[in-house]
Amino acid sequence: MLTTETRYQRGQRALAEIDGEAGQKVIDALADIAPDFARYVIEFPFGDIYTRPGLSLREREIATIAALCALGNATPQLKVHIHASLNVGLTRTEITETLMQMAVYAGFPAALNGLFAAKEVFASHNEIKAQSKVE
Amino acid sequence: MLTTETRYQRGQRALAEIDGEAGQKVIDALADIAPDFARYVIEFPFGDIYTRPGLSLREREIATIAALCALGNATPQLKVHIHASLNVGLTRTEITETLMQMAVYAGFPAALNGLFAAKEVFASHNEIKAQSKVE
Amino acid sequence: MLTTETRYQRGQRALAEIDGEAGQKVIDALADIAPDFARYVIEFPFGDIYTRPGLSLREREIATIAALCALGNATPQLKVHIHASLNVGLTRTEITETLMQMAVYAGFPAALNGLFAAKEVFASHNEIKAQSKVE
Amino acid sequence: MLTTETRYQRGQRALAEIDGEAGQKVIDALADIAPDFARYVIEFPFGDIYTRPGLSLREREIATIAALCALGNATPQLKVHIHASLNVGLTRTEITETLMQMAVYAGFPAALNGLFAAKEVFASHNEIKAQSKVE
Amino acid sequence: MLTTETRYQRGQRALAEIDGEAGQKVIDALADIAPDFARYVIEFPFGDIYTRPGLSLREREIATIAALCALGNATPQLKVHIHASLNVGLTRTEITETLMQMAVYAGFPAALNGLFAAKEVFASHNEIKAQSKVE
Amino acid sequence: MLTTETRYQRGQRALAEIDGEAGQKVIDALADIAPDFARYVIEFPFGDIYTRPGLSLREREIATIAALCALGNATPQLKVHIHASLNVGLTRTEITETLMQMAVYAGFPAALNGLFAAKEVFASHNEIKAQSKVE
Repeated sequence: MLTTETRYQRGQRALAEIDGEAGQKVIDALADIAPDFARYVIEFPFGDIYTRPGLSLREREIATIAALCALGNATPQLKVHIHASLNVGLTRTEITETLMQMAVYAGFPAALNGLFAAKEVFASHNEIKAQSKVE
Repeated sequence: MLTTETRYQRGQRALAEIDGEAGQKVIDALADIAPDFARYVIEFPFGDIYTRPGLSLREREIATIAALCALGNATPQLKVHIHASLNVGLTRTEITETLMQMAVYAGFPAALNGLFAAKEVFASHNEIKAQSKVE
Repeated sequence: MLTTETRYQRGQRALAEIDGEAGQKVIDALADIAPDFARYVIEFPFGDIYTRPGLSLREREIATIAALCALGNATPQLKVHIHASLNVGLTRTEITETLMQMAVYAGFPAALNGLFAAKEVFASHNEIKAQSKVE
Repeated sequence: MLTTETRYQRGQRALAEIDGEAGQKVIDALADIAPDFARYVIEFPFGDIYTRPGLSLREREIATIAALCALGNATPQLKVHIHASLNVGLTRTEITETLMQMAVYAGFPAALNGLFAAKEVFASHNEIKAQSKVE
Repeated sequence: MLTTETRYQRGQRALAEIDGEAGQKVIDALADIAPDFARYVIEFPFGDIYTRPGLSLREREIATIAALCALGNATPQLKVHIHASLNVGLTRTEITETLMQMAVYAGFPAALNGLFAAKEVFASHNEIKAQSKVE
Repeated sequence: MLTTETRYQRGQRALAEIDGEAGQKVIDALADIAPDFARYVIEFPFGDIYTRPGLSLREREIATIAALCALGNATPQLKVHIHASLNVGLTRTEITETLMQMAVYAGFPAALNGLFAAKEVFASHNEIKAQSKVE
């Protein structure tokens, strides 16, 4: 069982680093409906792909938010990854630049919806920061 | 007419730097069917978006090939931008990593078709290099 | 008018058997905006397609939830058909297996959103069952 | 700066004529997240495209609601343009006919979701009319 | 059998008027693989939808080419309908304007691919005209 | 290394059973561009998903061809899986019924393009059968 466990453990470390609590919530929400799928989410995207060398996490998140914004049918995942982009060090400007560029490839509605998703995530980040200053 | 011309000129410089001859061919092919659209392609994507600060051209091309690979319905443009990615300094590994990651967000067929598009572009690059050594 | 009526009647029987109340609600909601379209929904998908021999209703629902999960832009219809899948005898496991498989063809976000739609439908089924035991 | 301003001014006139208040709200919502993108929305779609000769605004809106209904991943923009379609003189029947036709090209779920979006917009229009009679 | 036949006959007249030979070729190509589907193509899109009042054929074709260009995954059908658009009286300019506008809603690659499809159809029309002058 | 090897071996058996030579060709074509991705294709879709209990291979292929036909942007993979559907025991009628049903959920062009892909695959199967009789 060594290697499967290792993919899983490697995936969990990557998930925690990239998506933080938001990622863990997705995993938890799968527990009662498709627990094996929770394992696959950790093992394949995070254990196999995000931990590969060749691209930095910053670059991987640019690719991910570009794709999710362009596809336009996965808003919850786009928000998780805008949050993740901040976690791995992208600036708000780098995120909005990536989303704006999608107007060229997927149309203005896709870019607008991506930008409004970012607006929500940035606002919730401001609240978290404000709270943590008070505490 | 100064500013419009400037957007157009700025766009032409960006187009030449990023897409090279492949970009110019697209513009030329539009001349007899939709010449105004040729101008828009130069002005908006290249004059307005690619020349913005905030993201490097390398990062912008990662976003573009991620989106075009994920959408999966624009193979000619994906090939132009895999070529462009090499022009602006992405390595072949960085390109294939970006395309492989799309399996997570758009499915394995999208990633496979992106990788096979890259295979074609890389092969034609090898030929160009081989030819230029001979000459 | 005999044949049109027959397609319509055949469609109504299929709609009632497959989608139950949820299907009828869709038809009713169309009454004031596009009544002819309500008729087409009954006649073509249900009167023409679902009543064809060659595939069982179980197999047809596997095809439908696979497609709607993969497309990812029709959550209300996906929920109606997850409900319908239970009606025609698919187990919860068969439904979640179908949705999980979509990670391969349409990406992990599409599969996740399909599974979360199933979670909602299954929960509302549990409530209905609990209520009907009490009554 | 004359020409850029002119595109912007021309775009603002077109935006006001076509989308009315709903369009201005979108522009305002971009102010704190991506103000340059607000400018692009006015300049390219409205300043460059909608003001072109060759198609009437009625015909342009038919094309837009057909595309947004078919794509199925941009409901907020579809609603803005159903509203816009009424503004530029399309009748409710012409709008629902366009949306119904999308069943052929993008499937019944896309058409249904388009029709239900229209139902909401038409209902809010009825309220606005009722209010303005009272005032 | 009267009404079904009537839908079929009405559909055949509409198919012949709108798509001409190109439509009949599609129907013929289905004969050995899915003859019932050939009948459905005639009956539902053409017998039910295109023959409805409320929109002119010109307007219906604007909606169709807009949707097919935006979806970007049905090039053969887009070409058939660009041809059909000419048949029902749209000018080349009206067709290219519709396709250009799709850059706003589905991105520049979708619009470019639509315009290049139109370029092909227009060229084949020129040949047909040239031939018929000679004969 | 036991478990990873086991996923890989299990995946190879599933790939051989389901996709046959066509699947192996895809794997081989990846060798020089993205060998790790070839491994992932074997491990995740085939080693993890297709070998799960809960759905028969016949049912899994119905789901796959439904999804690929509906998405409409992965014709090579659709052909591989129409071929695979025959391998795992679906009849030609069951395959065409599944594809026809997609007209309801993804539109007539998607269904037509799926049926024409099936026509090609069926024709190549006829040739293979004819050849093997001669040999």
